[in-house]
Amino acid sequence: MERIKPHTLSGFMELLPEKQAAMDAIMATVRRVYSLYGFTALDTPVIEASDVLLAKGGGETEKQIYRFTKGDSDLALRFDLTVPLAKYVAMNYSNLTFPFRRFQIGKVYRGERAQRGRFREFYQADIDVIGDGSLDIMNEAEVPSIIYRVFTELGLRRFVIRVNNRKVLTGFYDMLGLSEKSGDIMRAVDKLEKIGAEKVRGILTEDLGVPEASAGEILDFMSIKGSNDRVLERLRDFRGRSGVFDTGLDELAAVTGLLKSFGVPEDHFAVDLTIARGLDYYTGTVYETFMTDHPEVGSICSGGRYDNLAGYYTDKSLPGVGISIGLTRLFFILDDCGLLSDELPTAPADVLILPMTDDRAPAVELATGLRGAGIRAQIYAEPKKFKAKMAYANKLKVPFAAILGEDEVKAGKVSLKDMRTGWQELLSFGEAIEAVRRASVAPVSPIKD
Amino acid sequence: MERIKPHTLSGFMELLPEKQAAMDAIMATVRRVYSLYGFTALDTPVIEASDVLLAKGGGETEKQIYRFTKGDSDLALRFDLTVPLAKYVAMNYSNLTFPFRRFQIGKVYRGERAQRGRFREFYQADIDVIGDGSLDIMNEAEVPSIIYRVFTELGLRRFVIRVNNRKVLTGFYDMLGLSEKSGDIMRAVDKLEKIGAEKVRGILTEDLGVPEASAGEILDFMSIKGSNDRVLERLRDFRGRSGVFDTGLDELAAVTGLLKSFGVPEDHFAVDLTIARGLDYYTGTVYETFMTDHPEVGSICSGGRYDNLAGYYTDKSLPGVGISIGLTRLFFILDDCGLLSDELPTAPADVLILPMTDDRAPAVELATGLRGAGIRAQIYAEPKKFKAKMAYANKLKVPFAAILGEDEVKAGKVSLKDMRTGWQELLSFGEAIEAVRRASVAPVSPIKD
Repeated sequence: MERIKPHTLSGFMELLPEKQAAMDAIMATVRRVYSLYGFTALDTPVIEASDVLLAKGGGETEKQIYRFTKGDSDLALRFDLTVPLAKYVAMNYSNLTFPFRRFQIGKVYRGERAQRGRFREFYQADIDVIGDGSLDIMNEAEVPSIIYRVFTELGLRRFVIRVNNRKVLTGFYDMLGLSEKSGDIMRAVDKLEKIGAEKVRGILTEDLGVPEASAGEILDFMSIKGSNDRVLERLRDFRGRSGVFDTGLDELAAVTGLLKSFGVPEDHFAVDLTIARGLDYYTGTVYETFMTDHPEVGSICSGGRYDNLAGYYTDKSLPGVGISIGLTRLFFILDDCGLLSDELPTAPADVLILPMTDDRAPAVELATGLRGAGIRAQIYAEPKKFKAKMAYANKLKVPFAAILGEDEVKAGKVSLKDMRTGWQELLSFGEAIEAVRRASVAPVSPIKD
Repeated sequence: MERIKPHTLSGFMELLPEKQAAMDAIMATVRRVYSLYGFTALDTPVIEASDVLLAKGGGETEKQIYRFTKGDSDLALRFDLTVPLAKYVAMNYSNLTFPFRRFQIGKVYRGERAQRGRFREFYQADIDVIGDGSLDIMNEAEVPSIIYRVFTELGLRRFVIRVNNRKVLTGFYDMLGLSEKSGDIMRAVDKLEKIGAEKVRGILTEDLGVPEASAGEILDFMSIKGSNDRVLERLRDFRGRSGVFDTGLDELAAVTGLLKSFGVPEDHFAVDLTIARGLDYYTGTVYETFMTDHPEVGSICSGGRYDNLAGYYTDKSLPGVGISIGLTRLFFILDDCGLLSDELPTAPADVLILPMTDDRAPAVELATGLRGAGIRAQIYAEPKKFKAKMAYANKLKVPFAAILGEDEVKAGKVSLKDMRTGWQELLSFGEAIEAVRRASVAPVSPIKD
């Protein structure tokens, strides 16, 4: 037979079983936390009609989109979960209850240039709250509390959620008479951390024609740092010069105040005036999340408030707030930084049953009992030597081996062995099931930090 | 703004929230049962290189494949989960531990002609056990016990797993000297239930040139019915005429015997000599699963034993046994037959918190307490009238409303209302959390039957 060399496309993550178990644990935690906050699950197709998916117009992603024809249909793979959400809400408007809170965890596709840590197929884990005509500021405060809980429950300790408000920025540029250039200015300011204040000043004055004095004011404004209370206090000095700014400041103060009620510790969130998140879409609170010890990887969870989810599909006003976690990239980073926990159980079974006699009925009976008690059990049925069977259990890191030799079968018992400690005892089936159940320990976080 | 009419492609399932909750419950049950049997989770890309995906050669599915180019790459969307498994095992052979037991639940793509109940994007939920060179017959007996448990735990009662062995069939056609025509004959016999014995006899004698006498023997053989013991007994009359047949019969008897040990009731599985499952791939035990009251929908879970998982990628001998459930189609059928349970909780939250005062801190505190206790809670923050807030809770079928009016806040308490019974009481936050926790009832099966 002619053989094809099997390979997986570059930019597509495919994990060995142990790593997959860690990835699954991360996905399960994200799903559980999202659910705790009262979000409903959504699942939309990976393929959409191109005119629907690209209704908003391309932008930078358009070149990256997987687009093709099948028969007469012009099709494309989704490149995020936001456009499918907009489609879904616009289509099903009269069947949904607003505010509509949904989470979705699914694969999206972008044909980016292949490079280390960049993926062409990757999971996004999104939540959004969509209002019908209006949406209370409370939602903008709750979202970062969800970010906090997700990462805390994953086991990450050292991260900061940076919060800003687009109205504060827009209002500030209004004050300086620079509204029309605000998009370009925000893009320049976004580079502050990377290239430093003096280079940004150069871009502002030389490339964008911002007056020296205004460029100085912008850099002063962006350098406002300190505790959240201190930043808000300094912002209050700008009050009364722009209605938009004042609204933004009120929102920022409200969000900051509520975040404390939500139990997010002060050292895990920071008002940061340099955060802007893109240009047109966001209109209120915006968020980015950084790993304290790995600022180089950028934001691991971002989002914000927007006024118009689905303007390209419907005339309904659908404001919302949402966040997205790029799970595939996050997993790659955690693995790369050595932050995946070694303690996380990755075995496919809790008990490996080793029948050493020809009659398999006792093994089947024990397996059925264990499974009935919710314990994951596998019968190792291959006719191998005892040593090979134990090696299999060790390789898979199965915590318990249940040995059914002739003596055990005659006595109607089983030798249960704890593979981690070496402890072994002859027990009745009921006692063995109970012993395994007692041994199941508290869940381990996927991340060590 | 120019607007695009939002729509979802035909043949692509996209559910409203309540139905999605039911689908998710089904997927979670399948995943849980698969896990109980000691299978490891696998996740492979949706997109593969076309030469890899089509290495086996097309067959009927080839026309249906979504295939396209991106840059220089000839790509295709997976049309099942078996070819990706073959690729994975061949690629990672030296890093896997055999027998390798994996489950995978994921979307696959087939550009079938659009028709009711046919999907172009659908979930498959597969398990496979792959041996390295050999694989014990025990695995062939365990697999139908997993089918039994999956459907039983889903809540389905009236179904039968039909079991056969390809060696029994191959051996039987050997005896008649019809080995070379066995593929065509099996295809004809497969139509027995649909077109009846006389029409099949016509195809056998006229189209395939099978002698009258042999056609009679084939139809006699296929009409062997009755209890499993009775069928096996009648098959024993054919012993000694074909080595392959005798092996097949031994395997069939072993599987049948072990199935009883696995606790599968006799009325839920049947030796059925008409089951053949395709032509080349399967070599031993084969399975199909039928809903007793809906035979017209065909098999809802099929699979079997094969000798050579990945011959087109590797010279390693990789025998295996597996099954596949087409979850999207199954969901469609269950919904269509009215078999989805009305009792299944579909609300996105267990408690809806209704703050009636300006200060949201008490609502946030209660929400945090509930979530800390693992209870799904949502704060309804929109400034609506009380009646509108209760209507929201009713629409979403949230079981509890937690009302925080001025009186409650002053007293540091909450009015907890059971939306199903109307019961309402003024409680401390701790008491309310405890009351909700106590009320969470035993899990409901997604299917009523």
